[in-house]
Amino acid sequence: MISAFIYGYSSRKPKTSELRKSARLYKSLNNWLNNSSALSRRTMARLPSPTPDGHVSSRTTAEQGTTSKTFETIKETIPETEEALNGPKVFESQEQLLDVKELYVPLEKKEDAIKEAGELVKLTLSELDLQWLHVLADGWASPLQGFMKEDEYLQSLHFSTLKLKDGTIVNQSIPIVLPISNSDKERIGNERNVALCYPELPGTPVAILRNIEIYHHHKEERCARTFGVTDPRHPYTSVIYESGDWLVGGKLEVLERIRYNDGLDSYRYSPRQLKEQFRKCEADAVFVFQLRNPIHNGHALLMNSCREKLLQKGFKKPLLLVHQIGGKVKDDDVPLDIRIAQNEAILEEGILDPHNTIIGIFPSPMIYAGPKEVQWHAKARMNAGCRFYIVGRDPAGMKHPGTNRDIYDPWHGKKVLMMAPGLEKLEILPFQVAAYNVKSGRMEFFDSTRPEDFLFISGTMMRKFASTGEEPPAGFMGKKAWEILASYYQNKRGNESPQSR
Amino acid sequence: MISAFIYGYSSRKPKTSELRKSARLYKSLNNWLNNSSALSRRTMARLPSPTPDGHVSSRTTAEQGTTSKTFETIKETIPETEEALNGPKVFESQEQLLDVKELYVPLEKKEDAIKEAGELVKLTLSELDLQWLHVLADGWASPLQGFMKEDEYLQSLHFSTLKLKDGTIVNQSIPIVLPISNSDKERIGNERNVALCYPELPGTPVAILRNIEIYHHHKEERCARTFGVTDPRHPYTSVIYESGDWLVGGKLEVLERIRYNDGLDSYRYSPRQLKEQFRKCEADAVFVFQLRNPIHNGHALLMNSCREKLLQKGFKKPLLLVHQIGGKVKDDDVPLDIRIAQNEAILEEGILDPHNTIIGIFPSPMIYAGPKEVQWHAKARMNAGCRFYIVGRDPAGMKHPGTNRDIYDPWHGKKVLMMAPGLEKLEILPFQVAAYNVKSGRMEFFDSTRPEDFLFISGTMMRKFASTGEEPPAGFMGKKAWEILASYYQNKRGNESPQSR
Repeated sequence: MISAFIYGYSSRKPKTSELRKSARLYKSLNNWLNNSSALSRRTMARLPSPTPDGHVSSRTTAEQGTTSKTFETIKETIPETEEALNGPKVFESQEQLLDVKELYVPLEKKEDAIKEAGELVKLTLSELDLQWLHVLADGWASPLQGFMKEDEYLQSLHFSTLKLKDGTIVNQSIPIVLPISNSDKERIGNERNVALCYPELPGTPVAILRNIEIYHHHKEERCARTFGVTDPRHPYTSVIYESGDWLVGGKLEVLERIRYNDGLDSYRYSPRQLKEQFRKCEADAVFVFQLRNPIHNGHALLMNSCREKLLQKGFKKPLLLVHQIGGKVKDDDVPLDIRIAQNEAILEEGILDPHNTIIGIFPSPMIYAGPKEVQWHAKARMNAGCRFYIVGRDPAGMKHPGTNRDIYDPWHGKKVLMMAPGLEKLEILPFQVAAYNVKSGRMEFFDSTRPEDFLFISGTMMRKFASTGEEPPAGFMGKKAWEILASYYQNKRGNESPQSR
Repeated sequence: MISAFIYGYSSRKPKTSELRKSARLYKSLNNWLNNSSALSRRTMARLPSPTPDGHVSSRTTAEQGTTSKTFETIKETIPETEEALNGPKVFESQEQLLDVKELYVPLEKKEDAIKEAGELVKLTLSELDLQWLHVLADGWASPLQGFMKEDEYLQSLHFSTLKLKDGTIVNQSIPIVLPISNSDKERIGNERNVALCYPELPGTPVAILRNIEIYHHHKEERCARTFGVTDPRHPYTSVIYESGDWLVGGKLEVLERIRYNDGLDSYRYSPRQLKEQFRKCEADAVFVFQLRNPIHNGHALLMNSCREKLLQKGFKKPLLLVHQIGGKVKDDDVPLDIRIAQNEAILEEGILDPHNTIIGIFPSPMIYAGPKEVQWHAKARMNAGCRFYIVGRDPAGMKHPGTNRDIYDPWHGKKVLMMAPGLEKLEILPFQVAAYNVKSGRMEFFDSTRPEDFLFISGTMMRKFASTGEEPPAGFMGKKAWEILASYYQNKRGNESPQSR
């Protein structure tokens, strides 16, 4: 079942020429700017011109309702990326990666554990709690053995790390905690162990939490230190503010593997399963691309460029893990099933090398915490045996709900990731921004010496293309992949405003 | 000059019996509760009674305008302290402490540096900037060599540490940065070095900042990650929000030692000067008490208890550094000159051992950042050769300007300090809360088995006693020390409302 979406992995060997070709698949669309009927140049977010001090503010093309990406200071941001690409950290480490521990009850103890769980005080998880439990159970947060107790929570919140008994420092940049209400706390009383139950089946235990500790949930402080904002309109601070006033930590024993029965469970490899896949594939370098979006040709350009670099460095069989966020995303992000179908189409069309790419689902929710979250994304994949992590502009970032400007400096994510304690064994591959070159008519790496040649296609603009049925610039995304996306947005639009049908 | 306030250090040897006696100096005041005319029991903040779930909220004795300290959950907070007192970290390390580097220009280069500074673009410091410059120049933040560049800023903000070139991790939990305005940035242009000038003498350089880097000042994020709140009514977030939009980092060369000419400069030992003092005194254990307040007998109790513990552990000559914050404090804190005079009186009265105590001034501003700031307070004193750091309830904490509840969990400061990377060589001495025992009529360590015996005297209440000319409970503070404080508050009250004279 798993091999079903490792395209032709065992059927034939990949050719280097083929890999190189795939990076040049972007179709020419020189005529697009002149011929596009409904969308004028103004509908594309233009690269803003810097003011005399080099500062550029975000602009809104009000008449079309599209917002450009904010490039606050072109001369300051682009060169940093170029410098980082030649930095000393990349391709240096040769050490082994950490092993991971799954938190599932061994088969021989399962029956007893189910019986015991039935007799314990029961806490019903939220959908998000279950996603975090899945993350913990699979070992993505290993060596964490359950929802955090206060000592772990404080270390994570203040230092982005956990110190193990032997003195080892591991990265854990975001708290993984279980909030409970006052009434839950009262029900628990002095119990040492509790049963955690499925959200859709409140009486059915999914896990036992042992040797528990209950402590205050300081929500504002948690938001501030995690997100750098306390605004309750942020998609994850709102979750925190609405959650319980207490946190319960303890050691997890999960009764069975988590299944969502949504047709996508086979994409949800655990770290151990991924490691096994990498071994079977005889990959000598695994590089991962974390995303919560459809793949456009700009993404493909950098994934293919990374593959080329790895080949140039002497690796024989680099393997790409396209790793979609599987947990809760904010409302305007594309749903998981559409993203997976779109990603599959990208492989079918050969835009990414189908022979050396795995599409997988990372069960974590998105929390939109920028520099804190990119560490989590990298650490989790390090636990899965990935050695190279691709990072770009403003990872896990979003617009400030109050100001509509980027919450985070767009290059802080990359910088913080490269200095983060506990990630020394992971090799960070920073990349440049890809943008639409209006002269060549394709997605290319942005060249700061000729900014006038480039246009940035924002997510808002992409949604507009898709929902109006407009064809995007031909070099922007594979045709079949685009159709999947367009179809989703058109259905969504239809459902949202039935009177317009 | 320096020895003027090391009482009788060289005049005679201290006697152990004397030290023990000083811990029992608190006068009995059994009759106070019944005899006090103007202030009834209700004017003292009473220890709140827990609700059935153990939670206690802050209460205001509205009729007197006094607010009690918030003990959110007595059963949860007190035992933690007791446990920590017996924890494994105390008295273990025997290693040498880090050396420090001062940033003053060597005498032989001073003339050239002054000449060079005169020709550079000049930036005028604020009063606070000068205090931070002083902190850096003296080496309190060593190995930091100047105002932070972005890489240092990000490490401090995210990890509370700096990684040195040799891989050593040092603690630096708060950013030490220099904000500048847009117009300052424009004036600097592409200059590599700038001169920093005194606030009161804008054309007079105090230092050269070399090889500078200018980067964005992300104020909201800085506040959030440092203070755990973004509320602009916090006394230091307000400073940040009002400061420049850019930060300038670089290497400092300070032209001469900083003097304030306020009659207190002789208390402002640098870390090197303190180390030299400790050496001269032949102290075998230096323990430090950081404060921004007058010393009451509760403080004295724990300082004397710490001395006793050190003697019990076999140290022959423990030396206490009473170290007052010298930089900016919030408006309702007691001014530095009054605090120093009050502290001197405490020594004169023998409440603290005058033979083995140094009163000094730490030039840092207070920033009221709780668990982040307590690390800074400890690290700076570690740089000065102190080996034992006393920490109590809610260090560097304050009330939330929005909710008037403690911003920080009162025991997080102690916990975070004990787990902080880069402070392993410092031995943390956590202590219990002292409170007024209404039965014995003196300040004693709070005993959670008989909470009904104790009253907590809040800062608000103390100010009320002082400004109304009321005598405090006799065991609360030394008589002469109290008179200094009362006189200050009475003058302040007179100045604030002249019509009431």
